[in-house]
Amino acid sequence: MAEDNVIFVGNKPIMNYVLAAVTQFNDGAKEVVIKARGRAISRAVDTAEVVRNRFLPDVQVKNIEIGTEELQGDKGESINVSSIEIYLGK
Amino acid sequence: MAEDNVIFVGNKPIMNYVLAAVTQFNDGAKEVVIKARGRAISRAVDTAEVVRNRFLPDVQVKNIEIGTEELQGDKGESINVSSIEIYLGK
Repeated sequence: MAEDNVIFVGNKPIMNYVLAAVTQFNDGAKEVVIKARGRAISRAVDTAEVVRNRFLPDVQVKNIEIGTEELQGDKGESINVSSIEIYLGK
Repeated sequence: MAEDNVIFVGNKPIMNYVLAAVTQFNDGAKEVVIKARGRAISRAVDTAEVVRNRFLPDVQVKNIEIGTEELQGDKGESINVSSIEIYLGK
């Protein structure tokens, strides 16, 4: 799958990510991956739910994976952050 | 599955939910479901990750489901809230 079918959810309004996903499907993508870390995880779930409930009813959640990523803190310490990947497909 | 194998994640410290899950597995549960809504979703993922990375390496994520629940607001209006269910099992 091409890297441009991945949407990283951050702190922008959820509708930005929803429209990015809808655009990718309308451009012919068969699968779109919504990724997020830390507190943005709940926003990734919101994004997936709005895409399939309000815009693209034929899109389904194919798979969801969770994991832990180790980030570097300001002082070089390592911080564990949870992550999610939501695979949407037609 | 008995209802007491379900853990609802809210605003308490994550370790509370982690210990509740670990206790259920140690008491013989084969499956524990971690549920959350709205902003607590990212904390549910944290809970699942800490359980399997730090306490019970033999526990795996069996399935993850996301959905939308319709809640009643203060003024009787309906509010859509995302939800997650993380199924952990041995």
